[in-house]
Amino acid sequence: MKIISKSDLVSLKRSVDQGTEAQRKSVQSIIEQVKLHGDRAVKEYTERFDKTALDSLQVTREEFEKAYEAMDGEFVEILQEAADNIRTFHEKQISHSWFDTSIDGTILGQKITPLDAVGVYVPGGTATYPSSVFMNVIPAQVAGVEKIVMVTPPGEDGKIPDGVLLAAHILGVENVYKVGGAQAIAALAYGTETISAVDKITGPGNVFVALAKREVFGDVDIDMIAGPSEITVLADDTALAPEIAADLLSQAEHDARSSSVLVTASEDLAEKVQTEVHHQLEDLPRADIARQSVEDYGMIIVCDTWDEAIETVNDIAPEHLEIITSDPFQHLGKIKHAGAIFLGPYSSEPVGDYFAGPNHVLPTNGTARFSSPLTVDDFVKKSSVISYSREALQTNADKIARFARLEGLEAHARAVESRKERWK
Amino acid sequence: MKIISKSDLVSLKRSVDQGTEAQRKSVQSIIEQVKLHGDRAVKEYTERFDKTALDSLQVTREEFEKAYEAMDGEFVEILQEAADNIRTFHEKQISHSWFDTSIDGTILGQKITPLDAVGVYVPGGTATYPSSVFMNVIPAQVAGVEKIVMVTPPGEDGKIPDGVLLAAHILGVENVYKVGGAQAIAALAYGTETISAVDKITGPGNVFVALAKREVFGDVDIDMIAGPSEITVLADDTALAPEIAADLLSQAEHDARSSSVLVTASEDLAEKVQTEVHHQLEDLPRADIARQSVEDYGMIIVCDTWDEAIETVNDIAPEHLEIITSDPFQHLGKIKHAGAIFLGPYSSEPVGDYFAGPNHVLPTNGTARFSSPLTVDDFVKKSSVISYSREALQTNADKIARFARLEGLEAHARAVESRKERWK
Repeated sequence: MKIISKSDLVSLKRSVDQGTEAQRKSVQSIIEQVKLHGDRAVKEYTERFDKTALDSLQVTREEFEKAYEAMDGEFVEILQEAADNIRTFHEKQISHSWFDTSIDGTILGQKITPLDAVGVYVPGGTATYPSSVFMNVIPAQVAGVEKIVMVTPPGEDGKIPDGVLLAAHILGVENVYKVGGAQAIAALAYGTETISAVDKITGPGNVFVALAKREVFGDVDIDMIAGPSEITVLADDTALAPEIAADLLSQAEHDARSSSVLVTASEDLAEKVQTEVHHQLEDLPRADIARQSVEDYGMIIVCDTWDEAIETVNDIAPEHLEIITSDPFQHLGKIKHAGAIFLGPYSSEPVGDYFAGPNHVLPTNGTARFSSPLTVDDFVKKSSVISYSREALQTNADKIARFARLEGLEAHARAVESRKERWK
Repeated sequence: MKIISKSDLVSLKRSVDQGTEAQRKSVQSIIEQVKLHGDRAVKEYTERFDKTALDSLQVTREEFEKAYEAMDGEFVEILQEAADNIRTFHEKQISHSWFDTSIDGTILGQKITPLDAVGVYVPGGTATYPSSVFMNVIPAQVAGVEKIVMVTPPGEDGKIPDGVLLAAHILGVENVYKVGGAQAIAALAYGTETISAVDKITGPGNVFVALAKREVFGDVDIDMIAGPSEITVLADDTALAPEIAADLLSQAEHDARSSSVLVTASEDLAEKVQTEVHHQLEDLPRADIARQSVEDYGMIIVCDTWDEAIETVNDIAPEHLEIITSDPFQHLGKIKHAGAIFLGPYSSEPVGDYFAGPNHVLPTNGTARFSSPLTVDDFVKKSSVISYSREALQTNADKIARFARLEGLEAHARAVESRKERWK
């Protein structure tokens, strides 16, 4: 892991997989086929890509029950507690419809309505991600979404990992389908005989999933195109090097393209953390991935001043930011761009991945400049409400008509003028 | 304007201009050139597409003042009042940072931060759109965005319409540049020597602008890809046919691809409105556009029951919905999908375009199923805040570690376990 002084830093290396032209073409063709042939196309792609031939796409009640029985009771309780914490936090995000009345009788407001139907993509592959189920489904449930459809690629044995089924079962999600990749996104966006179309698709996936989400965006809404995981730690001399190193590695182990960065004004800390990272790397199960990640995308940036350190953090706009200093809340107001901000020595980033309550779906790749964590707001939409009064119409019709005519829109002007005349 | 019974309705014709492959290629090349050559490329494209050779892209103080002097004082006051109304409404949308403390010392919350810089595209062409300036700039100002950059294409005389300059001047927007099309979007997304890069781009434009916004999306945020204007009127026998016809035409005059629809359970009303539309069309200045629009995209849908009428409205998910019935608020709770809902006989749609206060930037083409009007929320982003306490860490570290290991992420588990050990 390189140590570099801020003055020598040109820019941070980051990775976004935009996909190749061939991948994009392939995704477009998969979407087209699923639109045309529905379940038949979905099953064919599942056989081709996931190497399993399925009679039925939907997870059965028996499969849910088996997953539940396979898991030991203590772990079920942990999952349940995590789900409760996540639900409690997200319930605080609920927005309410509001309106405002004027003395002339006019009512203006904003109506909040949950989305009708949402699709959640849960990635497959070697690992199993019950936390991803929680973080995508719970905000939708809290928002009041009635129909939640989950898709996740089956293994070659045609099965879904127990952890994922259990998480879905705990949340009461019944519509779970064994389909992944671009074909899953197409099925969610346009519907098939068994999978009903949704209004929004959330959840991370591989490059084919990301390209497919981008492709269907507009016909349905999507959450965001997630890049590799990132952490930036902002620390002073009061921070302990082993803890910083452990947290940096907790992101580095996700993906060889994950980015782990320490920003500090302390050269001493920089050196200690560098040593610790290499030391702790030695016996990590995913050491190869983590080593590649810290070599290619990891960095320790030493700043001359603390102000420069803060500025560096804002330039990075990290997905996860840890502030480990003597008085971390002092700096909170200065942080402009970060997906999630972890304050103090006890707030190790994994605390937020699974358990504390806030969402772990966060903006990556600098998009914290303009994007937010996944929240309940992402599963509702607003409608403006306008009830103009007779009095307001009389007072304002001429002004509105004049404004409309300036914009060359005569029918607009007449609509209000004729009403003023009629409702004198 | 066709009358059709609900049972015969297959689907509503709607229009989205996805652009041709050639247009897409052209937009990609324009963006590339602006990235490479900055102002020089911008000026070349402006000369080619807008037929004007500009020395300086930025609108000068003198130009603002001239626009101000050219406009009569009464109209300036109308604009000012509209701006005040819009600001008052949007101020009610302000979200606040919040946090919640637990008895164990943990603090969880959500920090709201305005975007640093926003670009507003104001369309040019034959008309002048001060209302578009207001509706895009005011929410950004209310959100607390520090840097607002406006772009709009110049006429062949190298000038911007007075109404647009005046609107910008009233709002105190100083950074206004004479550039339109894909080159304007590229300049906002990536910056040039004179136009600084922004974090989000809002505002409607032609197909080149829409394609360019789609292309830069991800590097910056965008509002939405707006389609042609739409209105659906839901009315019973208490509604007056001339008013409905006038409101339908106020959308139809926007664009030959605009969609104006009446949904009712009254055959009598349907026939009266049909007659009125044709009658009022006769002497409209933009009659050609409006006629084409009502012929191609207009429709009167007669339903058997009122429930069916409500269902039809939700199926359409219109940009603008008017409810003109004996007791319109009765139906508000049943409306699930609409950009803006206008209630009662005095709430003619143009009231909302210019003056009442809510935003006129609304989801089109059925995207009200999952999209919202432009609001102050679109100009802020959230960051999760997590300050875990020592006590919470001690209580929960083992659970978090176990969860992490289920997901195969050992470094995550160690980060919390080692901390638990150290802070006993």
